[in-house]
Amino acid sequence: MAKMNKVRMGMVGGGEGAFIGAVHRHALALDGQIELVCGAFSRDNQNNQRTGDSLGLDDNRVYSSWETLLTAELALPEDERMQALIIVTPNHLHVPISIAAIEAGFHVFCEKPAAISLDEAQVLKSKLKQSDVLYGLAHTYLGYPMVWQAQHMVTSGLLGNIRKVYVEYPQGWLSANEESHNKQASWRTDPAQSGGSGAMGDIGTHAFGLVEFVLQQQVTSLCADLQTHVDGRRLDDDGAALIRTDGGASGVLIASQVCAGEENALKIRVYGDKGAIEWQQMEPNSIIHRPLGEPYRVFRAGMGQPGLCEDASARCRTPAGHPEGYLEAMANLYGYFAKAINAAKAAELTISELGKAPGVPGIDSGLRGMAFIDAMLTSSDSETKWHSVPNTK
Amino acid sequence: MAKMNKVRMGMVGGGEGAFIGAVHRHALALDGQIELVCGAFSRDNQNNQRTGDSLGLDDNRVYSSWETLLTAELALPEDERMQALIIVTPNHLHVPISIAAIEAGFHVFCEKPAAISLDEAQVLKSKLKQSDVLYGLAHTYLGYPMVWQAQHMVTSGLLGNIRKVYVEYPQGWLSANEESHNKQASWRTDPAQSGGSGAMGDIGTHAFGLVEFVLQQQVTSLCADLQTHVDGRRLDDDGAALIRTDGGASGVLIASQVCAGEENALKIRVYGDKGAIEWQQMEPNSIIHRPLGEPYRVFRAGMGQPGLCEDASARCRTPAGHPEGYLEAMANLYGYFAKAINAAKAAELTISELGKAPGVPGIDSGLRGMAFIDAMLTSSDSETKWHSVPNTK
Amino acid sequence: MAKMNKVRMGMVGGGEGAFIGAVHRHALALDGQIELVCGAFSRDNQNNQRTGDSLGLDDNRVYSSWETLLTAELALPEDERMQALIIVTPNHLHVPISIAAIEAGFHVFCEKPAAISLDEAQVLKSKLKQSDVLYGLAHTYLGYPMVWQAQHMVTSGLLGNIRKVYVEYPQGWLSANEESHNKQASWRTDPAQSGGSGAMGDIGTHAFGLVEFVLQQQVTSLCADLQTHVDGRRLDDDGAALIRTDGGASGVLIASQVCAGEENALKIRVYGDKGAIEWQQMEPNSIIHRPLGEPYRVFRAGMGQPGLCEDASARCRTPAGHPEGYLEAMANLYGYFAKAINAAKAAELTISELGKAPGVPGIDSGLRGMAFIDAMLTSSDSETKWHSVPNTK
Amino acid sequence: MAKMNKVRMGMVGGGEGAFIGAVHRHALALDGQIELVCGAFSRDNQNNQRTGDSLGLDDNRVYSSWETLLTAELALPEDERMQALIIVTPNHLHVPISIAAIEAGFHVFCEKPAAISLDEAQVLKSKLKQSDVLYGLAHTYLGYPMVWQAQHMVTSGLLGNIRKVYVEYPQGWLSANEESHNKQASWRTDPAQSGGSGAMGDIGTHAFGLVEFVLQQQVTSLCADLQTHVDGRRLDDDGAALIRTDGGASGVLIASQVCAGEENALKIRVYGDKGAIEWQQMEPNSIIHRPLGEPYRVFRAGMGQPGLCEDASARCRTPAGHPEGYLEAMANLYGYFAKAINAAKAAELTISELGKAPGVPGIDSGLRGMAFIDAMLTSSDSETKWHSVPNTK
Repeated sequence: MAKMNKVRMGMVGGGEGAFIGAVHRHALALDGQIELVCGAFSRDNQNNQRTGDSLGLDDNRVYSSWETLLTAELALPEDERMQALIIVTPNHLHVPISIAAIEAGFHVFCEKPAAISLDEAQVLKSKLKQSDVLYGLAHTYLGYPMVWQAQHMVTSGLLGNIRKVYVEYPQGWLSANEESHNKQASWRTDPAQSGGSGAMGDIGTHAFGLVEFVLQQQVTSLCADLQTHVDGRRLDDDGAALIRTDGGASGVLIASQVCAGEENALKIRVYGDKGAIEWQQMEPNSIIHRPLGEPYRVFRAGMGQPGLCEDASARCRTPAGHPEGYLEAMANLYGYFAKAINAAKAAELTISELGKAPGVPGIDSGLRGMAFIDAMLTSSDSETKWHSVPNTK
Repeated sequence: MAKMNKVRMGMVGGGEGAFIGAVHRHALALDGQIELVCGAFSRDNQNNQRTGDSLGLDDNRVYSSWETLLTAELALPEDERMQALIIVTPNHLHVPISIAAIEAGFHVFCEKPAAISLDEAQVLKSKLKQSDVLYGLAHTYLGYPMVWQAQHMVTSGLLGNIRKVYVEYPQGWLSANEESHNKQASWRTDPAQSGGSGAMGDIGTHAFGLVEFVLQQQVTSLCADLQTHVDGRRLDDDGAALIRTDGGASGVLIASQVCAGEENALKIRVYGDKGAIEWQQMEPNSIIHRPLGEPYRVFRAGMGQPGLCEDASARCRTPAGHPEGYLEAMANLYGYFAKAINAAKAAELTISELGKAPGVPGIDSGLRGMAFIDAMLTSSDSETKWHSVPNTK
Repeated sequence: MAKMNKVRMGMVGGGEGAFIGAVHRHALALDGQIELVCGAFSRDNQNNQRTGDSLGLDDNRVYSSWETLLTAELALPEDERMQALIIVTPNHLHVPISIAAIEAGFHVFCEKPAAISLDEAQVLKSKLKQSDVLYGLAHTYLGYPMVWQAQHMVTSGLLGNIRKVYVEYPQGWLSANEESHNKQASWRTDPAQSGGSGAMGDIGTHAFGLVEFVLQQQVTSLCADLQTHVDGRRLDDDGAALIRTDGGASGVLIASQVCAGEENALKIRVYGDKGAIEWQQMEPNSIIHRPLGEPYRVFRAGMGQPGLCEDASARCRTPAGHPEGYLEAMANLYGYFAKAINAAKAAELTISELGKAPGVPGIDSGLRGMAFIDAMLTSSDSETKWHSVPNTK
Repeated sequence: MAKMNKVRMGMVGGGEGAFIGAVHRHALALDGQIELVCGAFSRDNQNNQRTGDSLGLDDNRVYSSWETLLTAELALPEDERMQALIIVTPNHLHVPISIAAIEAGFHVFCEKPAAISLDEAQVLKSKLKQSDVLYGLAHTYLGYPMVWQAQHMVTSGLLGNIRKVYVEYPQGWLSANEESHNKQASWRTDPAQSGGSGAMGDIGTHAFGLVEFVLQQQVTSLCADLQTHVDGRRLDDDGAALIRTDGGASGVLIASQVCAGEENALKIRVYGDKGAIEWQQMEPNSIIHRPLGEPYRVFRAGMGQPGLCEDASARCRTPAGHPEGYLEAMANLYGYFAKAINAAKAAELTISELGKAPGVPGIDSGLRGMAFIDAMLTSSDSETKWHSVPNTK
C-alpha cells in the first residue's frame, strides 16, 4: 500500500461571517486526506488575515485577492503549491475564478451554482474540455450514502417502472426581510451577485439535481409558479412546478425559503409500479422502502448494514446508530475528489484521460442546474403550460 | 334536561362487500344518538337480506330498492318512520336518490361526492333550497378535532398572512389493475358510476375541501396535470395541481392512488408570515405549530388539552393519549347532524329557518368539490396554464 | 344467517363527570350489537337522572342504586331484562356488585381492577366457578389488533427465544396535587376506594397484563421501587420493577403518573434471539418488527393488511391508513363479550359449558393483576431483592 | 488574534479492523485544530505500517510499540514532538499506557473506560494529581450540543424538582455469539482485556455518565440485574437497574447488547414537577421539552437556534436542519481538549494551575464509571436490594 499523500487545496471566499466556507473546511478535513494550504478569504483585509490566522495558515499564503493567490501559488515548487482551488464566493464570481484557475492548471471544487446563467456554464464547460483540470461541484446532498442507496433502488429495478416523483425543499429562513438577517440573505437575494433566481438557484437546483440523480432520468418539461413574498425582495423566494421526465415519470417540485419554521427539509419520494422509496435530508441515515403489498421497511446507513449497496456503504464511516450528517456528506464529495486527483497523479494520466472524478458532481450537473433555473423563470412568466428544460448533453 | 331522542335513520347501499357503508354504521352508532331502523343495502336480494339480518333490522324494514324504502317509510307513523336517509351507493345515484328523499321530506346524509357533475350538484342545491330538508355530506376529514383546530389557528391570525398551502393525498391501492382488486376499485374507475374523474373525485376533493376549510379561502385558479397509469383504466388515477386562492395564498395539491405502499396519507401544511401548521390524517390527534423564530410545538387532541379551541375540544371523547381516529371523525359529523335534526324538531322550526347543520359539510361543499373536479379535468387537457375554479356561491 | 340480536346491558356508575363510563358507552355502541337498557349511574340522584335522560333511557330503568337495579331488572320478562351488567364504579365496589350480579344471574363486564385485593379476587373467582355467568374485565389494551399481532409474533416463534421485555406506562396527569384535579384523581388516590395501590393498580396492572398477554408467560418474580411524589398523597403514584418470567425472560416494568407532560404512553418492547417487536398505545396501528440482521419493517393494522394474523385482522374495521384507536379497542372486548353471550344463548349452553368468552380478559386476568399489585407493594417495602408473584392458576 | 497552532497528537491502537480508532481520527481532524503526527497502531507490524501509510505519516513516526513511541517522541525537539497521546487500545491497557504517558509528560486522551477497576482508576487519578498533564476521557455523548442543552434545562430549574430519570441504551450487535462477529466483539467479551463487565463497562457507563451529567447529581444507590444471554460468553451482555440519586430523583437504567435489531439507541428522559425533557442519540439534534400543562415543544440544534443555551450553541457548526452527528460530538471533545492545551501553553501555566479542560470529561468521570460497574456487579450477585455507589469525590 502506497503512502497516502494529502492533497493541497486553497480557498477563495469563506472569511468570517460566511456560512459555507467553514462547512467546506470541516468537510475537507474530516478524513485527513486533504490539507488547506492557502486562501484569499475576504476582500476585507482584516477579515482575510483573521481567517488565515484562525486556520493556522502561513502568513505568506493568505492572499489579498484570488488573482494574487493564483499567481503566487503557481510560482511555488510543484510539490508545495496547492493542487486544487475551492471557490466559495458569491455566485457571480464562480465562473470567472473557475476559468482563471483552470487556465493556471489548478483543479477546481466549486460551491454551487456552477454559474449564474446557462450560457456562462457552457463557456465553463468548453474551457474544461480543453483542459486537464478536474472540476467538482458541491451538490452536497449527492454525497449522502442513502442518496446513492436511493439511486440504486431505483436503477436496479426494485421499484419497477417509475411513475411519480415528489421532491420538496422547504426552508423558512427568508420568511422575514433581509434587514433582519445576515449578509447571507443579502447577497443571495441580490440579482447581481446571485444570478437571475433566488430560491430556485439556491435550493431549487438541489431539489432538481436530486431528482435527476436518483432517477437517472432528465426532467424534460415543467410548469412553474414562482413568487416573491417579502416586500422589496428582488428575486423569487418561493416556487413550485409540475414536472415530467424523459423516463415517463411525472411529479412535483417544491422549493421555498418562506416556509416559516422549516429548517432544511429536503425530501424526495419516488413511486414505481412495484414499490416506493422516501428519503429526507434531516434524517439522512434512513430510507423507507415500500414494496407493493408488503409491510414497509427501513434501510439504515452504517458500515456493513444489511441491504446497502456498495456505493452507499462506501460513504459510511460508522456503524448504524452513530448518526452521520451534512458535513460527512460533503466530506464524501471531497474524499472522491481528492482520490481522483491522487489517482491522476499516480498514474501520470491527464484528467481528460482519467475522466471525471467518480462520485463527484461536475460541470454537467452545473449545466443541468442552470437549465432548470432558466426553464423555471421562463415558465413562471408564461401563459403557456409546459416549458421544456433544455437538453444540456 | 330533556330526554335524548335517538334519531332514526335508513341507509341505501352499504351491503356486504362495500367498504363505506359499514363505516357509516359504526360512526352513526358510536355516540348512541342515532338508530339505524331500515335499509336497502344491495340490489342483490340475498346480500340485502343478509346485511339486514346482521344488523338486527326488522325484516319488513329491509327493502328491495331505495324507491320502495322511501314509499314504505313514508307510510309509517311519524314517530316510527326514519327521519334521515344515508346514501352510500356508487356516485351516479347520489343525486337521484337525494332528490327523491328530499321530495319525500327526509333529511339526507350522503357519502361524497354530492353529485357526478357540477350541473347535477346545482340542481340538487336548488331542490334543497325549496325544501325543509337538512343535507349533510360525508367529508369525513372535516370531522377531525384537529382539522377544526387548524382552521382556528389560521383564521385567528396566529400564522399571520397566509402565503403557502401544500396539501397531498397519496394512496397506493390502485397501483395495480382492477382485476386484482375488489368491487370497490371497479366501480370507482367506471366513468358511468363514478363520474368524469377517478382519483380527483375520490380523494382529490377531500384534499381540496380540506384546503378551503382550513384556510376559509376559496381556490380561484389552478393548473393541473392528471394522469392514468394503469393500462385499461378509464379515469385518472393520479394528479397534481398548482393552486391559488382568493386570499392571496398559493400552493400545491397532490392526489394519487398509484403511490405504491401509501395508505391514506392525507396531509396539509399551511405557512403564513408568522408561522406554520401541519396536520396529517394518519396521526390525526396532533398538529405541529411552527411559530416563526421559536421552537416548534405540538398541540394534541383530547378533552381539556391546553391550547385547543372549543370547536376542537367539543369533538374529543377521551383525554389526550387515548387515540381517536377515522370512525370518531365521521361520528362527529353524524353527531352534529343528529343534533340539528333534534333541534329543528324541538323548536318546531323548519330547516330553512334553522339553517344548515353547524359542523356538518353540506351542499355548498358538494358544489365546491364538483367545481374542483371540473377545473382539474379542463386544466389537465389544456395548453393554457391557469384555469379558474368556478365561484359556486 | 341468523338475525343478530342486540345484547341488552345495564351500567352501574358512569354518571356525569366520570371518565370511564362514557368510554364504555361509546365502546359498546360502536358495532351496533349491544344496547344499553338501564343504569344506576350515580348516587347523586340528579346526576343519575340527567345521565339517564342524556342516554335516552326509559325513566323507570334509571335506578337509584345498583341494588334496586338488580332487583328490578330481575323482575322484568326475560326477553326485556338486561343480560349483562357493566360495572364502572370506584374500585372497592367492583367485587360486591359483581357478586350480587352473579347471584342474580347476570353476566358481568367490569372495569379493572377486578378487585381491591388478591383475596377478594379469589372469592370472586370461586363465585364465578359456581355460576353460569360470563365475566369480562376491561383490560382495554388487550382489545387492540396489534397487541394480538404482537402476541402472535412472539408465540409463533418469529422472535426466537425471548430474552428481554421492557414495558413502560408513563402518564403525567397526577404530577400536581389532587386539588388541582377532578374527582377522578381524588378517588383514585383514596385507599378506601382504590385499594392498596395508586399507580400500580391504575396503570401498572395494564403494563403487567400486557407483558403476560404478549409473551404468554407469567411474571414469576420482581423487585420493585414504588414512590409517592406529591405531598399528602396516600398511595403510590410512581414505580418501577425489575421482572423475570417463567419463560426465562427478564426485563423492566415502569408505571408512573407523575411523568409531567406524558399522556398515556404505554409501550412494550420484546427481544428474542431472532428479532424484536415494539408496540405503543399512542400509535396503536403499527408494530415495528426488527428481524435480526435485516432492515426493520412496520406491520400496519387494517382489514386485509399483509402479514397480519387472523386475530389482529378480525379486530380491524377499516383499511390501513384510517386510524382506529382506544374506543375501537374497547369495542373489540365488548364485541367478543356480546358474541359469547349470544352464542351461549343460541346453543342453549350454560357458560361453564361454553367456557370463557374468547378474546375477552376474565377473572384470571383480574387475579394476575391483584397478584402483581401485592408483589409490588411487598417488594417495595422490603430489603430483600426478589419477591415472587403468586401463581394464581 | 493569534495564529492558531495545530496541536500534535499521537495514537496507540486503532489499526486496521478496529472501530474506534478511525472514529477518533475523523473527530480530531474535523475542525483542523489537531494534527496526528505519530502512532503505534497495532502489535501486528504489517497492520501497523499499513495504517501509518494510509494516514500519510512519516515512516519513522510509526512505532512498533507504545513504549517505543513514548521514548522516541520524547527525544524529538519540543516543537515537533507530539503533545498528547490518544489511547484506543483494549481496556486493560488504558491505565498502564496512561501512566507511562503522564510520566513522560504527555497529555492523554483516552477512550473509555478509564480503567478496568475502581482501584486502578484511583491510582491513575493520584498520578494525574501529581502531574501537569491534561487528561480527557472519550465520553463521546457528552460532546453533543443537546446533551449540554439538556443539562442546562435541568440545572436552570426549568423542570422544577427532578423526580424521575429513565435512561436506556439498547444495542443488538451481540445478539449472536462472538464467532459470528469481528474482533471487536471478541476482546470486548474477554474479561482479561475488557475488565470485569461486558455491557455495563461498554455502554452502561455511557448511560450512567449521561444521567449524572444531565442531572448534575450523583447516583447513590442502585439495584441491578445483570445477565449473560449467549452461551459461552464470559461477561454480562445485558442488564438493568433501579437507581436513586443524591438529589432525590429515582429511576431506571437499562443497558443491553442483545436487543436484536437495535443500533445504538441511547436515550434519556428526565421528569420534574414542572416539566420533562427527552433526548435520544440517534436523533441527537432535538430535545423534546414537555412543560407541565402546555403543548410540548422541540428544541433543535443549530447555530443561533432560539432557546439554545450557550454551551449547546457553541457545539454546533451548522444551521439547524443540517444534521450533525456522532463524529461531530467527539470532535467537540477534541476541540475543547486542544483549546485547553493551547491555552495552557499560551499562558505558560501548568495544567494543575489551569485546571481540567472545560467541556471534556476527565478522570473523575472515569472514576464514576468504575464505581458504577463495581456497584452493578456487586448488586447483581447479591440478595440484598439496594447497594450504594461509592462516592468517588
